[in-house]
Amino acid sequence: MTAAFIHPNALCESRRIGDGTRVWAFAHVLPGAVIGADNNICDGVFIENDVITGDRVTVKCGVQLWDGVRLDDDVFIGPNATFTNDAFPRSRVPRAPLPPTVICRGASIGANATVLPGVTVGPWAMVGAGSVITADVPANAVVAGNPSRIIGYADAELLADPAELPAGAPFGTVRAEVHRDARGRLSHWPLERAVPFVPRRLYVVDGAPDGWARGGGAYRRSHQLLIATQGALTVALDDGQVRLAVRLSAPEIGLHVPPGIWTLQYGHTPDASLLVLASEPFDPAERAADYEAFRRGE
Amino acid sequence: MTAAFIHPNALCESRRIGDGTRVWAFAHVLPGAVIGADNNICDGVFIENDVITGDRVTVKCGVQLWDGVRLDDDVFIGPNATFTNDAFPRSRVPRAPLPPTVICRGASIGANATVLPGVTVGPWAMVGAGSVITADVPANAVVAGNPSRIIGYADAELLADPAELPAGAPFGTVRAEVHRDARGRLSHWPLERAVPFVPRRLYVVDGAPDGWARGGGAYRRSHQLLIATQGALTVALDDGQVRLAVRLSAPEIGLHVPPGIWTLQYGHTPDASLLVLASEPFDPAERAADYEAFRRGE
Amino acid sequence: MTAAFIHPNALCESRRIGDGTRVWAFAHVLPGAVIGADNNICDGVFIENDVITGDRVTVKCGVQLWDGVRLDDDVFIGPNATFTNDAFPRSRVPRAPLPPTVICRGASIGANATVLPGVTVGPWAMVGAGSVITADVPANAVVAGNPSRIIGYADAELLADPAELPAGAPFGTVRAEVHRDARGRLSHWPLERAVPFVPRRLYVVDGAPDGWARGGGAYRRSHQLLIATQGALTVALDDGQVRLAVRLSAPEIGLHVPPGIWTLQYGHTPDASLLVLASEPFDPAERAADYEAFRRGE
Amino acid sequence: MTAAFIHPNALCESRRIGDGTRVWAFAHVLPGAVIGADNNICDGVFIENDVITGDRVTVKCGVQLWDGVRLDDDVFIGPNATFTNDAFPRSRVPRAPLPPTVICRGASIGANATVLPGVTVGPWAMVGAGSVITADVPANAVVAGNPSRIIGYADAELLADPAELPAGAPFGTVRAEVHRDARGRLSHWPLERAVPFVPRRLYVVDGAPDGWARGGGAYRRSHQLLIATQGALTVALDDGQVRLAVRLSAPEIGLHVPPGIWTLQYGHTPDASLLVLASEPFDPAERAADYEAFRRGE
Amino acid sequence: MTAAFIHPNALCESRRIGDGTRVWAFAHVLPGAVIGADNNICDGVFIENDVITGDRVTVKCGVQLWDGVRLDDDVFIGPNATFTNDAFPRSRVPRAPLPPTVICRGASIGANATVLPGVTVGPWAMVGAGSVITADVPANAVVAGNPSRIIGYADAELLADPAELPAGAPFGTVRAEVHRDARGRLSHWPLERAVPFVPRRLYVVDGAPDGWARGGGAYRRSHQLLIATQGALTVALDDGQVRLAVRLSAPEIGLHVPPGIWTLQYGHTPDASLLVLASEPFDPAERAADYEAFRRGE
Amino acid sequence: MTAAFIHPNALCESRRIGDGTRVWAFAHVLPGAVIGADNNICDGVFIENDVITGDRVTVKCGVQLWDGVRLDDDVFIGPNATFTNDAFPRSRVPRAPLPPTVICRGASIGANATVLPGVTVGPWAMVGAGSVITADVPANAVVAGNPSRIIGYADAELLADPAELPAGAPFGTVRAEVHRDARGRLSHWPLERAVPFVPRRLYVVDGAPDGWARGGGAYRRSHQLLIATQGALTVALDDGQVRLAVRLSAPEIGLHVPPGIWTLQYGHTPDASLLVLASEPFDPAERAADYEAFRRGE
Repeated sequence: MTAAFIHPNALCESRRIGDGTRVWAFAHVLPGAVIGADNNICDGVFIENDVITGDRVTVKCGVQLWDGVRLDDDVFIGPNATFTNDAFPRSRVPRAPLPPTVICRGASIGANATVLPGVTVGPWAMVGAGSVITADVPANAVVAGNPSRIIGYADAELLADPAELPAGAPFGTVRAEVHRDARGRLSHWPLERAVPFVPRRLYVVDGAPDGWARGGGAYRRSHQLLIATQGALTVALDDGQVRLAVRLSAPEIGLHVPPGIWTLQYGHTPDASLLVLASEPFDPAERAADYEAFRRGE
Repeated sequence: MTAAFIHPNALCESRRIGDGTRVWAFAHVLPGAVIGADNNICDGVFIENDVITGDRVTVKCGVQLWDGVRLDDDVFIGPNATFTNDAFPRSRVPRAPLPPTVICRGASIGANATVLPGVTVGPWAMVGAGSVITADVPANAVVAGNPSRIIGYADAELLADPAELPAGAPFGTVRAEVHRDARGRLSHWPLERAVPFVPRRLYVVDGAPDGWARGGGAYRRSHQLLIATQGALTVALDDGQVRLAVRLSAPEIGLHVPPGIWTLQYGHTPDASLLVLASEPFDPAERAADYEAFRRGE
Repeated sequence: MTAAFIHPNALCESRRIGDGTRVWAFAHVLPGAVIGADNNICDGVFIENDVITGDRVTVKCGVQLWDGVRLDDDVFIGPNATFTNDAFPRSRVPRAPLPPTVICRGASIGANATVLPGVTVGPWAMVGAGSVITADVPANAVVAGNPSRIIGYADAELLADPAELPAGAPFGTVRAEVHRDARGRLSHWPLERAVPFVPRRLYVVDGAPDGWARGGGAYRRSHQLLIATQGALTVALDDGQVRLAVRLSAPEIGLHVPPGIWTLQYGHTPDASLLVLASEPFDPAERAADYEAFRRGE
Repeated sequence: MTAAFIHPNALCESRRIGDGTRVWAFAHVLPGAVIGADNNICDGVFIENDVITGDRVTVKCGVQLWDGVRLDDDVFIGPNATFTNDAFPRSRVPRAPLPPTVICRGASIGANATVLPGVTVGPWAMVGAGSVITADVPANAVVAGNPSRIIGYADAELLADPAELPAGAPFGTVRAEVHRDARGRLSHWPLERAVPFVPRRLYVVDGAPDGWARGGGAYRRSHQLLIATQGALTVALDDGQVRLAVRLSAPEIGLHVPPGIWTLQYGHTPDASLLVLASEPFDPAERAADYEAFRRGE
Repeated sequence: MTAAFIHPNALCESRRIGDGTRVWAFAHVLPGAVIGADNNICDGVFIENDVITGDRVTVKCGVQLWDGVRLDDDVFIGPNATFTNDAFPRSRVPRAPLPPTVICRGASIGANATVLPGVTVGPWAMVGAGSVITADVPANAVVAGNPSRIIGYADAELLADPAELPAGAPFGTVRAEVHRDARGRLSHWPLERAVPFVPRRLYVVDGAPDGWARGGGAYRRSHQLLIATQGALTVALDDGQVRLAVRLSAPEIGLHVPPGIWTLQYGHTPDASLLVLASEPFDPAERAADYEAFRRGE
Repeated sequence: MTAAFIHPNALCESRRIGDGTRVWAFAHVLPGAVIGADNNICDGVFIENDVITGDRVTVKCGVQLWDGVRLDDDVFIGPNATFTNDAFPRSRVPRAPLPPTVICRGASIGANATVLPGVTVGPWAMVGAGSVITADVPANAVVAGNPSRIIGYADAELLADPAELPAGAPFGTVRAEVHRDARGRLSHWPLERAVPFVPRRLYVVDGAPDGWARGGGAYRRSHQLLIATQGALTVALDDGQVRLAVRLSAPEIGLHVPPGIWTLQYGHTPDASLLVLASEPFDPAERAADYEAFRRGE
């Protein structure tokens, strides 16, 4: 284990700097900061007192970490990315107390992005360069823009057609019987024959803004069938190993999600309406919302 | 019972004119026509040979009944309403054989309406003045326009808000639990608690043109729950005695229709998507599609 | 003065047929009908008992005048035009009492048009061939379509640009001072300098369906300034002699209408919003709504 | 050859009735009318003086032929179809002189249709029941609605995809080389290689209302290449024997039309833009606009 | 009063640093800069020569103040916020002379915001993190986005319904008499009865881009009545003590603004049209456009 | 020639610093960097090893140049502008190899802009302050926004009407003969008479996203005629001396571009369709795509 390296042109006033961490020129770390092991604190970074970073964190040049910023293990902060800790700053007016800004394990904040105070960026999320983060970012979400919106799920290939889902996957599609005539389209689901579980709960989601997410979790016992009865949306599927994103855009396609699959829904068209059938009554206890715990199989 | 009355200026070549029927001036009935009892055949009406009318039929001035027209009991044909029996007429080209044009019991064809060949106008339908009928008209439907579209259900009050449904009615509404936040609206239906039957079938109807109907029948055993998950549409409800029409326009409102209720759906907005849950697997045998038989309780 | 002429093949059972009137072959007039002078009742016309026509009326072939139809002087009814007198006809069900259908002085009903029961067609209106009239038609309006809508004002030239208004006309335009910049357009009306009266009333009209009319009358004392603050609409102007129609489509153009000018507004775009300033408080007594009286200077 | 048959209840005042023609009950033909051979003039038809009909014409019940109506050979007029001869009728006001209303050879006017004055309905056109004809109808066009619009080409199958064009047809498609990338689609036509003639003329048609036609003719020498650069439209193709209609909707598909092919374009979407390359400079003399002459090979 | 504090790792070449001001590590102040009292110049800030700051100014890390930047008293500049002083910069091309960039008293520039050259940010304005400021920002405006647009008025609650305006406020609503029927909505303002002043000026504002402001000032003598005749917009109201923002969206609601109330209008829908009646002829002299002077009662 | 100036508070580890170059306080240049002559490396700039800059380059405060960044002569990098060199950064995960990020001669990167990895910014392009550059930027393009889009062509006046093109310019407009009637607009180009070359190639461009460019080059032999057959777009014209931008929005206007004119197309409306006729078959060899070579007349 190597001791921390402090560049002679750095100002490092904290003594809690983890082993293997490097602090480069013109960086300035205030006495209260707690810096983990194997961090890379680049030129010109400024770190206030009430800051904690995990291990293997990279903070590129031109970044400031203000009081209340928490960086978990393996976080990457791009150059000139900018944190805040006051929602309505006025000169010499003490800021209102806010929950900490938390960047969860493995997440990356792109270059020159701006992070509004009090948000949580979920594990392994990828914040695009130049983004402005105004709300929490789900685990693994890829976001971009000002204000940022979700444009993908990290490391997941996007299948435009659900028929491309791989054969042996735990999730798969179920097709309705479709009848079309001059009166429109009727997509018929004989439940006993077509749906691989007995639905005990049904919900409909609409009015979702483009680029916002729903889902962001996994059920331990519930099977689900997702049907885009109107418009289109993307569903990311993640069993902890394999990740895929599927575009749903037809009422005749049902996406069967068995228990233990983490899902995230995003990319809703303005008219998107999602119908979900689930095999269990609603029970918050069966819902896993912590991605890292999910990945560990807890 | 009175014998038929034939105006001296009429030409009545048929001998099968029912009792009590009146044939007025300048009307002309060809020898093969079969006219029921208590008809009123007004001035200038022309009736070909292969025509059969029921009892208590009114045919106002300026109407022609061509070969292949069938008018059931109690039908009203407004003045200058025009029938056809050739879909693509050319002079001196024999017409292709077509099914008869049938105006079912009690239906009314408005003044100056045009009826294309081979259509069936259902019992007690009301065709508005000046309409052009290009397709079958369901029982009790009120239609208007060129081409005609359904604008109402005869004798049924339209309730803009399902909450106005009368308390003791056999049908009624079920409300979802609604959760709204920045991510949109979630309408939750805990099936066991909120839906008064076990769904064994689900279908989604979309792409319905405005003014066309779906439904138009009754189930003998199935309960249904109808939810407009997107857009809006009107559902007419008819238990043979009471008639109502209800506008559905929110995914949080379910309309429960027990067995033995005749329904008709129309007035779909372009984005309308209707979700139907039903208590039985699909069985054409349990479906009543003949309104008159339904009304008689068969 | 010539006596009425009755074609030998006509059936004229009424004795109240005005001088100079001609009743042609296969026409049938029931005993109670009252027919004015110099009418032309063409082949195959059928006239019931409770019908009154004025003088110089033309009724072309294939028309029926049912109980409750009133035709004022100088009315023209085109061939196969069809009247009705029951809003919801059923065979052998007595019709509900309705106000008479009135075709006012000088109006024309185009060939094969359909007139729903109880409507009033205003003086000198022009109903286009094939139209279906479902609502009252204002004086001088030109209507067409199924259902019909207003497409013009009889004998009035349409000026697309209010700047084309003739110089010596009693009505004219007033222009606002316009300021445009990146913040939009500001149309400024210094009232004392720009508006030729003191406004004591202001109203805003919006939500007008295309093809429906507003106005349709004249004020005896009120000056008005009409401004299309959004969208566009047409204003017909009629001083009893000269008629013009002007398209308003800019908030910087005010149309000054002095007292004694009959106006009609129609042709609203879906977003049309009309601002009206008037010189007098609202007083129904100063409003002339009877065009014929207006034209006579009453 | 049989002499004309006049029903005893008809009034036939003309002596120029062609052999084999039948005039049925309650019909009324004024003295000046000229009726061709083998006509069928049905019950209640009224024919004024300045009317000429060709041979083999059918006029169904309830129709009037006014002064100025011309029906060519083989015309069919459906029941209650209504002609007019005054664009702005007022009672007892002489009508302004108008060109005749001409129904060309073989055309059919559907039941209860309305024909405005002065229009020409082209040969073999098919006017749908209940239509209101406000403008000339091209040869072979199928029209419907109020006001009517073109919905097809008589006896021509509609190919939704130009790739379905039969192999041996004189016309055919030419495909551009297409390059798609993030900057859009580029459809490239190397003229010498891809276009089977040297273009000497180019024109662009846009702003065509849906249901109106362009084309309606044939070139004697010009080759044409038609490309829907935006939106979609239908092109009917007719070599006098075979008829087809093709939907064009992509800038990468060119429809090659050699000389001697009659075309009609209709069904334009609001944004349709049609690019035409032609092999000859514009010369009205090479254009055949008379379908009957074209069919005879003149 | 404390003397200025200069961190040993700072380079402070100016001698005009106000009392109590702190200049932190790696900051660099050029000799010509004039820094007020009680400033907080954080790590890494760079200040050119032609720069003047007021008292109690905060400049967070990573900010540069270029020649021509002026910061008034109590200004807050967030971390990495970036100023510019050349509208079209080229390397080694002298910049064109521009007016100074002025941040007025009490305004805040959010983290990582970008300020284009020559703009003025009004007093107490709040520029959101990550915004790009391309135009002047009115007093108290809250702006966000790239390019930035106005999303609120600092410290003002937004009332979605004008009926929520507090009872005793100097401003309030006046309701029109509304008449609705099939012809649309008529909102009637009898001026003498409904409007608490005699209007001597009227103006209409339309075409305002969303997020741009109008108003931004107060009248000393004029009463105003504001009516959103079409679309919707927000009006901020500020008497120097109390601030509110009201959403106007109906032609039947008038917002009465007495003299001495500062207003700002923003949040226009694309179709918004605002009608304003005012009690005085236009007089620039009665208009207060300097918020700080207004607040002091000048 | 002056030697380089290194501020005493700078850390300059490279020995390859060009004459006349200045490196200011708190800047840090790693040993491998190659810096040209007459650069201005401002306070706090950080430069990695694999970086090369040309002569006369300005790098303002707060900028980092990462491995793989190349700045040609005369480039300007505004303050806090941020480069990147990893498309999907994760802490301590080596970045995937990417092509260098190249800022071509004379280009300017505005303040606080963000440049994604691997892009090329063309010569003399102007990247607006706060932009996020996600794709290559053509020569001379002016871009802005997040993500950035093209809003202009540097130093080119925008002519909204092609008729404003100066008389003696090498490029100019050709007008079609236009025929308008109820069937739409026909814009006719008799090629021999109206087009100053024989077209041997034709292409159609549609589906171009707003703010993306096409063209971006010059032909050595081809004449072109550009026609916006639908929608609108802007064409920049540059003969190396004079620059203009012209808005095309009508199918009747053709823009003739002779050989040797550099063009760029941008600002497409969503429905824009551009028709191009060219005088030569496609030959990549005749296309100049390097603006600097073009300007030198190569």
